[in-house]
Amino acid sequence: MVLTDTTFKKLQNIVGISHCSRKKEDLICYAYDATARSYLPSAVLFPRDAGEISAILHLANSDRFNVIPRGSGTGMTGGSLPVEGGIVLAMGRLNRILEIDKDNLIAHAEPGVVTGHFHRAVESEGLFYPPDPSSSDFSTLGGNLAECAGGPRAVKYGVTRDYVLGLEAVLPTGEIIHSGVKTAKGVVGYDLTRLLIGSEGTLGIITSITLKLLPLPEAVSAMTAVFDHIETAAETVSEIIRRGIIPRTIEFMDNASIRCVERHLNMNLPVEAGALLLIEVDGKTEEVGTLIEQLRTLCVSQGAKDTKIAGKKEEIAALWKARKAISPALFQYGPDKINEDIVVPRSKIPDMVRKIEALKEKTGLTMVSFGHAGDGNIHFNIMLDKKNRDELKKAEAAIDALFEYTLELGGTISGEHGVGITKAPYIAKEIGSV
Amino acid sequence: MVLTDTTFKKLQNIVGISHCSRKKEDLICYAYDATARSYLPSAVLFPRDAGEISAILHLANSDRFNVIPRGSGTGMTGGSLPVEGGIVLAMGRLNRILEIDKDNLIAHAEPGVVTGHFHRAVESEGLFYPPDPSSSDFSTLGGNLAECAGGPRAVKYGVTRDYVLGLEAVLPTGEIIHSGVKTAKGVVGYDLTRLLIGSEGTLGIITSITLKLLPLPEAVSAMTAVFDHIETAAETVSEIIRRGIIPRTIEFMDNASIRCVERHLNMNLPVEAGALLLIEVDGKTEEVGTLIEQLRTLCVSQGAKDTKIAGKKEEIAALWKARKAISPALFQYGPDKINEDIVVPRSKIPDMVRKIEALKEKTGLTMVSFGHAGDGNIHFNIMLDKKNRDELKKAEAAIDALFEYTLELGGTISGEHGVGITKAPYIAKEIGSV
Repeated sequence: MVLTDTTFKKLQNIVGISHCSRKKEDLICYAYDATARSYLPSAVLFPRDAGEISAILHLANSDRFNVIPRGSGTGMTGGSLPVEGGIVLAMGRLNRILEIDKDNLIAHAEPGVVTGHFHRAVESEGLFYPPDPSSSDFSTLGGNLAECAGGPRAVKYGVTRDYVLGLEAVLPTGEIIHSGVKTAKGVVGYDLTRLLIGSEGTLGIITSITLKLLPLPEAVSAMTAVFDHIETAAETVSEIIRRGIIPRTIEFMDNASIRCVERHLNMNLPVEAGALLLIEVDGKTEEVGTLIEQLRTLCVSQGAKDTKIAGKKEEIAALWKARKAISPALFQYGPDKINEDIVVPRSKIPDMVRKIEALKEKTGLTMVSFGHAGDGNIHFNIMLDKKNRDELKKAEAAIDALFEYTLELGGTISGEHGVGITKAPYIAKEIGSV
Repeated sequence: MVLTDTTFKKLQNIVGISHCSRKKEDLICYAYDATARSYLPSAVLFPRDAGEISAILHLANSDRFNVIPRGSGTGMTGGSLPVEGGIVLAMGRLNRILEIDKDNLIAHAEPGVVTGHFHRAVESEGLFYPPDPSSSDFSTLGGNLAECAGGPRAVKYGVTRDYVLGLEAVLPTGEIIHSGVKTAKGVVGYDLTRLLIGSEGTLGIITSITLKLLPLPEAVSAMTAVFDHIETAAETVSEIIRRGIIPRTIEFMDNASIRCVERHLNMNLPVEAGALLLIEVDGKTEEVGTLIEQLRTLCVSQGAKDTKIAGKKEEIAALWKARKAISPALFQYGPDKINEDIVVPRSKIPDMVRKIEALKEKTGLTMVSFGHAGDGNIHFNIMLDKKNRDELKKAEAAIDALFEYTLELGGTISGEHGVGITKAPYIAKEIGSV
């Protein structure tokens, strides 16, 4: 796609000369995301509000160019990449938290607000925004909405879509719409709010967000449980849910994840363990104490070799540092990563874990699994050198087998990362062609 | 609309002769809903499954007739009425609970299952389906989904859309689609599940539902608080939320509702009170006891004249019997009801209550307010004789003023009843024309 000088001048007039660029050194910065793929845009623009974005989209329709909105570029499936060229709309200037309304437990924010900043802002008011993707220190609310991000706390609290009450968005036509409500309930008109959430930027560009908040839980407690065998850990996860206990997170790390983080952070993790569970509960102080002890007893009775309870904020933070370090630390194992995001019914996690072990043995590839076991959501990674044709072929066959089995178990091929470009070839397998 | 004999024969072939009728006495039974309006369909069909419904819709496209799906006809806005004729699809034969999966906390059910039956079925397994519209003893899951029903427990647990994981539906074209997942998370493809929910039957006919369940709370406790003045009750509701306390319900009844139910049921309700709050909490046994005492203290400090705690199941059931009796009991006040379903931010309930008091005084009409105060959701009713032109004119002007003020406060004109035919004229006021 070629962007003419005339069109670029019109774009400059819309956002101001200092808020757009087509210098190569700028374009390179907006060409990549967490997939490690890269496509150079024709220009990058930094709009300030819905009005400018509307004008840009009107122009896109008359002058015929692609528009790709982008948060922080932490996406795992390529949703913010200008695959066929066009202009990238970097949403970072729409970064204001407009209101935190304690009386009504809601907040208004712009899409470029970093999710972690938003967490801290509402928590300082005694409020709580549960969605917490591992990227939350970098990713933005807008990107989280576009992908319908999940994260570890979804076990108890649900995902991003469960916290969005209303939106302002600019349609591809340039029209500005307001969907949803500022209240606890609302059913007037089609649910365009949730249609936009998870639509990966294809249906409109979100420019303002009304979020539902909760009161901040009084206390949080966490525990780790070390297992010799990954199957035992998986069985334990299923058993917790089966007993009707809903912790706020049940994360798991397999042996390869544990080793990888240990090498990266040197935290004294149990590198011989088959798997580690990280379980977190929240609520009233007394309730939390009782619940975490109940979970510890359950883990031990299921075969956990070692359990530790972390009650202090710093201890809990250290555990999460380890957990969140996995994804970036993985590149120790190979220059390339194939990254999947499957979900199976929670009772089927042991089956899925056995399947992965079998694939590992069969292919001899480096496979690393970790993730939100409490949701049945497994982040499955194959680390390899894609230039090695033989490895790549084996890896692709393994992914095919894994997806096949995921669907057979009643699961889905993406729990929270989206479809983007990396999973587009597989979408019809899951939802059919209609 | 005229349904030819040829077309009717084809319909008979699809569903079987004993599962369709065009006898007047049958048609009359499927001509009305809770709006008390009535439109005779050309035929009523009782299909058995998605396959038959698909065939009916294919035929509807070739032979050109309207198709109106219908649950139990408890709708408040006319969504199941054959306003322009056509055939009614009575979904009562799709009434099986297909699976209650304790291991994964999900259930599969057909749309014709009565919501109250579904509650009891999952509760007998120690599980919990929170959405509980006042009509739940009669209304169906399919109807609840089509309208995105709310109900009293939404304060803590959210509305119907928050519990639907996946759907099977027949599109207007006759195509059968499967949307969503059977797992806790899932983001593959557009969120057609939630687009169908609340679409009031206009986008497709739901034929199978996957629902998310929760573990059944260990204990429930309820309390009533009697207030001299309705404004004090309203201020109390706002104060509860402001303090970050989230009961599972905060219902309110104004003086007219209390009197009306008392005359109907003779339960010793405080007929002189300005308003009554009915608050319910659930959770672990100890937690529930502490919380309800905390709420009682708060109500008293806010000015409640009399408070009573109901711990026993039968006592709580009696309170709900009173609450759920309001809507049908209202016809004591007049032959016709204009029924609105406004929602305002919870901190604005006192403002709205004052507005309603002012309208009552100004018009001299019989107005009754009750509803889900914890959500800011007020069911506002004007009882009148529509044949009295002067009353009707005054009532319509009052509704206009009420809607205007609702939107001014940042609210919505329908929290859970839908738009249907009764609110269609007002929809653009709220969401604009784009």
